[in-house]
Amino acid sequence: MKKASNRPFFTIWLTGLPCSGKTTISKALLERLNNDLLLNRGRRFVSLDGDDLRGKLNSDLGFSHEDRKENLRRVGHLSQLFNEKELNVVCSFVSPTDDLRDEALNHIDNVFLVFVECSADKCAERDVKGMWAKAKTGEIPMFTGYSAPYDIPKDADLVLNTENLTLDECVDKLLDSLIG
Amino acid sequence: MKKASNRPFFTIWLTGLPCSGKTTISKALLERLNNDLLLNRGRRFVSLDGDDLRGKLNSDLGFSHEDRKENLRRVGHLSQLFNEKELNVVCSFVSPTDDLRDEALNHIDNVFLVFVECSADKCAERDVKGMWAKAKTGEIPMFTGYSAPYDIPKDADLVLNTENLTLDECVDKLLDSLIG
Repeated sequence: MKKASNRPFFTIWLTGLPCSGKTTISKALLERLNNDLLLNRGRRFVSLDGDDLRGKLNSDLGFSHEDRKENLRRVGHLSQLFNEKELNVVCSFVSPTDDLRDEALNHIDNVFLVFVECSADKCAERDVKGMWAKAKTGEIPMFTGYSAPYDIPKDADLVLNTENLTLDECVDKLLDSLIG
Repeated sequence: MKKASNRPFFTIWLTGLPCSGKTTISKALLERLNNDLLLNRGRRFVSLDGDDLRGKLNSDLGFSHEDRKENLRRVGHLSQLFNEKELNVVCSFVSPTDDLRDEALNHIDNVFLVFVECSADKCAERDVKGMWAKAKTGEIPMFTGYSAPYDIPKDADLVLNTENLTLDECVDKLLDSLIG
């Protein structure tokens, strides 16, 4: 989707490897947007990530392929619901493969898709929650970027490389794309 | 819950028979609140009812007792999620029995429970969507108030009788209870 800012309410969908920087970008973007009335023009932005749903709305779901699909189906509907309630949403989900991403994105009318690009080596080095380490010992099986595939999205509206760009630069680029 | 207005963010839960007036009250309340900055003090109010979820987030659910429970479990988590995102929620769900209501309310930290009281005869007379008529011909089985039970909540924070009060009076009373 191009020109998200011309649409009334929309979802920014950040996809990328674990530790690529999705949630960090989302937080910085929201802080910038929600504190600047000239920038947000009175629109509220809300973040959504796995921590908002796992053990809560989606506590009935595990990590099988079917459950991952159902998890993303619900996130898609949830984002659309927020948009219908006149709130913009910034989603941070690995959403690794084309079919899993479609499971979510098919339910959202206005999506701005952002690929948060970062090499697996760099993500593993950051390893904020120690999950890459567990993936390497086999404690976490089917870990995206190590033992499970990640499909680079072919139809991203924007690519943000978090190895080459600073956090501020990522947010600037995202805002330019949304507003420009 | 008393003194909802002293809590940062909360859910107003309207329970009552089909056609008792829940959604009508919710709409009027939101219109009043979202257009009056002195009243809402910068807080946004969002409505949630069955139409927001059936065929969408909860399209995988039918009307068996188990599915109704799962429906309300998700609505509970959803309301809490909205509250965590700094939005107040007004929920309109029949939520007929104590166990079904608990399924939702147990997941919400701050709930203001409102019993929207109206006799079955009056609800059937209004019959906005023709569902009471279908219940009487048996086309809709297990219809709350006709062929399925409704438990009057013992712990409501407020009772609004829509046979005795006008819509404006209901909204005034609700606002008084929240703010007073």
